[in-house]
Amino acid sequence: MQFHSDNAAPVHPRVWDAMRSADALDMGYDGDALTARLDEAMSALFGEPCAVLWVATGTAANCLALAAMVPPEGGVVCHREAHIEVDEGGAPGFFLHGAKLMLVGGDHAKVTPDAARALIDPIRDDVHQVQPHALSVTQASEYGCVYRVEELQALSALCRERGLGFHVDDARFANAVAFLGCSPREACHGADALSFGMVKNGAMNAEAIVFFDPEKADRVRYRRKRAGHLQSKGRFMAAQILALIEDGLWLENARKANAAALHLARMAPGRLLHPVEANELFLRLSASEAAALRAQGFGFHDWGAQGARIVTAWDTREDHVEALGAALAAL
Amino acid sequence: MQFHSDNAAPVHPRVWDAMRSADALDMGYDGDALTARLDEAMSALFGEPCAVLWVATGTAANCLALAAMVPPEGGVVCHREAHIEVDEGGAPGFFLHGAKLMLVGGDHAKVTPDAARALIDPIRDDVHQVQPHALSVTQASEYGCVYRVEELQALSALCRERGLGFHVDDARFANAVAFLGCSPREACHGADALSFGMVKNGAMNAEAIVFFDPEKADRVRYRRKRAGHLQSKGRFMAAQILALIEDGLWLENARKANAAALHLARMAPGRLLHPVEANELFLRLSASEAAALRAQGFGFHDWGAQGARIVTAWDTREDHVEALGAALAAL
Amino acid sequence: MQFHSDNAAPVHPRVWDAMRSADALDMGYDGDALTARLDEAMSALFGEPCAVLWVATGTAANCLALAAMVPPEGGVVCHREAHIEVDEGGAPGFFLHGAKLMLVGGDHAKVTPDAARALIDPIRDDVHQVQPHALSVTQASEYGCVYRVEELQALSALCRERGLGFHVDDARFANAVAFLGCSPREACHGADALSFGMVKNGAMNAEAIVFFDPEKADRVRYRRKRAGHLQSKGRFMAAQILALIEDGLWLENARKANAAALHLARMAPGRLLHPVEANELFLRLSASEAAALRAQGFGFHDWGAQGARIVTAWDTREDHVEALGAALAAL
Amino acid sequence: MQFHSDNAAPVHPRVWDAMRSADALDMGYDGDALTARLDEAMSALFGEPCAVLWVATGTAANCLALAAMVPPEGGVVCHREAHIEVDEGGAPGFFLHGAKLMLVGGDHAKVTPDAARALIDPIRDDVHQVQPHALSVTQASEYGCVYRVEELQALSALCRERGLGFHVDDARFANAVAFLGCSPREACHGADALSFGMVKNGAMNAEAIVFFDPEKADRVRYRRKRAGHLQSKGRFMAAQILALIEDGLWLENARKANAAALHLARMAPGRLLHPVEANELFLRLSASEAAALRAQGFGFHDWGAQGARIVTAWDTREDHVEALGAALAAL
Repeated sequence: MQFHSDNAAPVHPRVWDAMRSADALDMGYDGDALTARLDEAMSALFGEPCAVLWVATGTAANCLALAAMVPPEGGVVCHREAHIEVDEGGAPGFFLHGAKLMLVGGDHAKVTPDAARALIDPIRDDVHQVQPHALSVTQASEYGCVYRVEELQALSALCRERGLGFHVDDARFANAVAFLGCSPREACHGADALSFGMVKNGAMNAEAIVFFDPEKADRVRYRRKRAGHLQSKGRFMAAQILALIEDGLWLENARKANAAALHLARMAPGRLLHPVEANELFLRLSASEAAALRAQGFGFHDWGAQGARIVTAWDTREDHVEALGAALAAL
Repeated sequence: MQFHSDNAAPVHPRVWDAMRSADALDMGYDGDALTARLDEAMSALFGEPCAVLWVATGTAANCLALAAMVPPEGGVVCHREAHIEVDEGGAPGFFLHGAKLMLVGGDHAKVTPDAARALIDPIRDDVHQVQPHALSVTQASEYGCVYRVEELQALSALCRERGLGFHVDDARFANAVAFLGCSPREACHGADALSFGMVKNGAMNAEAIVFFDPEKADRVRYRRKRAGHLQSKGRFMAAQILALIEDGLWLENARKANAAALHLARMAPGRLLHPVEANELFLRLSASEAAALRAQGFGFHDWGAQGARIVTAWDTREDHVEALGAALAAL
Repeated sequence: MQFHSDNAAPVHPRVWDAMRSADALDMGYDGDALTARLDEAMSALFGEPCAVLWVATGTAANCLALAAMVPPEGGVVCHREAHIEVDEGGAPGFFLHGAKLMLVGGDHAKVTPDAARALIDPIRDDVHQVQPHALSVTQASEYGCVYRVEELQALSALCRERGLGFHVDDARFANAVAFLGCSPREACHGADALSFGMVKNGAMNAEAIVFFDPEKADRVRYRRKRAGHLQSKGRFMAAQILALIEDGLWLENARKANAAALHLARMAPGRLLHPVEANELFLRLSASEAAALRAQGFGFHDWGAQGARIVTAWDTREDHVEALGAALAAL
Repeated sequence: MQFHSDNAAPVHPRVWDAMRSADALDMGYDGDALTARLDEAMSALFGEPCAVLWVATGTAANCLALAAMVPPEGGVVCHREAHIEVDEGGAPGFFLHGAKLMLVGGDHAKVTPDAARALIDPIRDDVHQVQPHALSVTQASEYGCVYRVEELQALSALCRERGLGFHVDDARFANAVAFLGCSPREACHGADALSFGMVKNGAMNAEAIVFFDPEKADRVRYRRKRAGHLQSKGRFMAAQILALIEDGLWLENARKANAAALHLARMAPGRLLHPVEANELFLRLSASEAAALRAQGFGFHDWGAQGARIVTAWDTREDHVEALGAALAAL
């Protein structure tokens, strides 16, 4: 009974089907018919014109999206616990040619306009200090918490005011939309570019970078190739994304994962370190409690010295959830 | 009847099977059981210990392999028509942080020791000039020509003599081995690292970087993550590579592609611009002749103003080859 | 009466003399007779063999020194208020190709071994997290505070233990040595490389990078040229450094600056935000007090909303110090 | 009797005087009164508004100028023997974050529009190939040859037509203007940015980057700091440039150097490998002839196996020229 990561979940059968169907003769790289459908499909989803690039990882998606906004001498405001800061092996430094991540704190790994302002305002506009060029937030956050539409409105207003690009790292965007019950565009209100995660939600190895200003995507196409991320059989990448977004599978999968997480949360209310708003639970759990759970066959990651991270996925079985909930309650 | 590129060929059924079998619960990134088998499988193939990293593209494979050998202030000697120089969108400049490609000429896109020496010898060992740190050759070359074992011996001896790393871009390594009829290690004699191509030979989107000094791979693991090339469901990458190398499928596929190319070559001997030693033909072909072929349903790329590139693959049908051969003969 | 910065102080007459004397025909770049004397002169000063490279700025000195220790995928542990983090326009990101600064807090902008350990220890040794490769401290610190020899011993021991390079940014090294009254090598105990500042201490535009492992300097010579820091009339750079270090002028100048600062500190004891150990004072000062001082002709920088930074230099006049001290007392 | 390089020549007395005069209290970095005069002085010289940044070396000047025009994924068209390609230790790769130099041939190290077109035209506008973003030429060229105004008109027209920035590396711009007898702006017709060399022409260590679109300079100010090229006592940099350009000294010095070179050329007409249009002579000279000259006390660099480079400077003595001319004639 595995709750390590939604990364470990299987590929959804409908994604498999789409990939098999894609295995026909077509032009290489991004010249195929499936890739050609992406912009339109995504524009329909978001209700406005957008340009889409597929890449194999969220790290590449985040960094290429930011590369459209931030020059090498610039900076990106983000949370101290943001994935780009903590868990991407320094990829932003590589893709952005040494641009700097400028860190703010804040509960639940969420950036607030106040925290961003407190960081930005003291920066002298002189050449001795790195100037911020973008703000990046994670929806849902690294602690599984979701920015409300009003929060995004405030953040994007700040970006406009200060001339910053607004990037949303949406590794778990589907879960956020499922939670908010709003439209996809509302759930990333004001974003110039998204890293729209597919892999945690049923895909194999395709993520989508979505640019709401389609022209911004043009340079990034060169950057993608230059980073070795333009696959020659790109049709398999497009197929995965289309399988998820064209018939609502993305949202369906996310709802299942969220429901499982919420169910668990209700069974262990006293242990929650963060509100459960997507498909991750962060629990207070002593080492001996963790050992006891593992002895019962539950797999998960420790989180610090006295905690655990539990992740559900589109395929998490109800009986596993029940079993884990019961085991937690019985500790 | 498509002869555009082996990139466009389908995924081999045995690769599909292996990928489906990989769709079980496992640890993320490169922590899965299949990835764990790669080093041993590849060591068995090459008859010496090696370390293997999967990546999604040949561009990433080439550049990460070179990153193990070349500091930012250094240079890579390669052919003027090498893929890394001509067709990778400047990726070496990105991955190597501005290191320089140092170009030599030579027939059939092959580097000779003499040409390499003529470039290297006049370089003053002072800080005003970029110093070469590696030699990169393509096996088979960009014109489908194969380095003989003796040629590789001479090139690797030169590398040892001058303290250069030796990288072999093996996008079509299988075809080269099939042509030479030697052992895999002989076909890349002396190489410190290979980019062992799988995608043109039946895989979907996995290539292997092979390091013959396994310690050299360690830093590259960090570099791979940093470049966004560490996929979270890495088991699907390893599965593709294992499917090709564990039971000889790689060589079987390459032999089919080579045979098709050779057959075609024999049917159009007067048109060959380069010897046909792998699965590519470069033909003299006027614009009107090219148009005539296309009108008959043959797809292929132009090559310069008076030429064409014809590529066969593991799945090229015999009747298509016969048809194209006949059409060429009838021009 | 200017207390803005020691950067603004004039060039010392003996430095001028040395530069004029250098204006004879000689070989270009670093091939001149004066540059040839640097290693020996600096080795004599430090009592052990070292290799010296001149550059025009402290920023270049810091970054080139670090480039000898830190690969692009690595990190540098430093203080949150370190000059390389706060005031060099992102130069480390540029020179180190995107390597990361990893920030610790601590009083008086000084790094403690405990703070460094608290940052380093939780870093998982996996590819998702940037690994530290060096520690950089500033002697005297950005608040004019001096690391004691024992503190440096503890920090350098930590570096040895964790395999980190140890860099000391010595923009005001002379002031630190003057304060400590120890040997130059003790004042940078265990450092692998120094940025030995000259410009704030009487030079015009030459700083010295000192490598205690002379071999480490070799690659940096290429990096210096590559960064456009190899001046063609390098003799004028070497002349400045020799003028300062060969006859003790560096220490003489620093003692004067320190004495002036100390004198001032004694006249405004209640206002000190940090101990005065070098040639900088950080004072509590309200906006109206600052205005009052400026109205009396004193120039200095504000430091935050309620503070001021006062810097003395080798040429600070005693009567100016007396005047400022009296004005402070009279506030 | 030294003819190695104009880099080795002394600092002009009027430059010394200006530097001494600059040694007064002023604001640091580029906040001083002399730096503030640069834009106006240079705009007067060129007859149109321009923005000026000082840096210490021609390498930094070239690379920072190009950084305003070329993104990391782009390329710079230049001559195969251009200084940026051959003699700057890979600095363009560093400053431009891996952008590529795209090389053309051509007599006398001069780029022709035809050669540039022949390189650019076959580049497919797709992401696999690096796209050119700028053209860089050297005035006077690396062989001491001068682009005529019409040649610059043709090159800059090509740049406009293809959307390329136009950079002129003017290490010996003064010599080119002196030769052409035209206005400074005509001698760099159409250039977006110049690296206006001062060091070979009487300065100590200041070069000027001149932007004819002043807005283009803004980002470069950040880049300069980030590259460690913003000196804290910048007043000494500005002083050198003003001393040369405000009273015509730059042209006066260049005329002297050119006259010496021309005089020599006339005394050795049969040996010239390139026309002598500035202050460099490239002569056919056997090893034994070179040895004979050196035995008579003449210093110069070999140029290949059968050649020599002779460089004159603003201070080259007439009797030395006569002596060398006679010695050459007597060989």
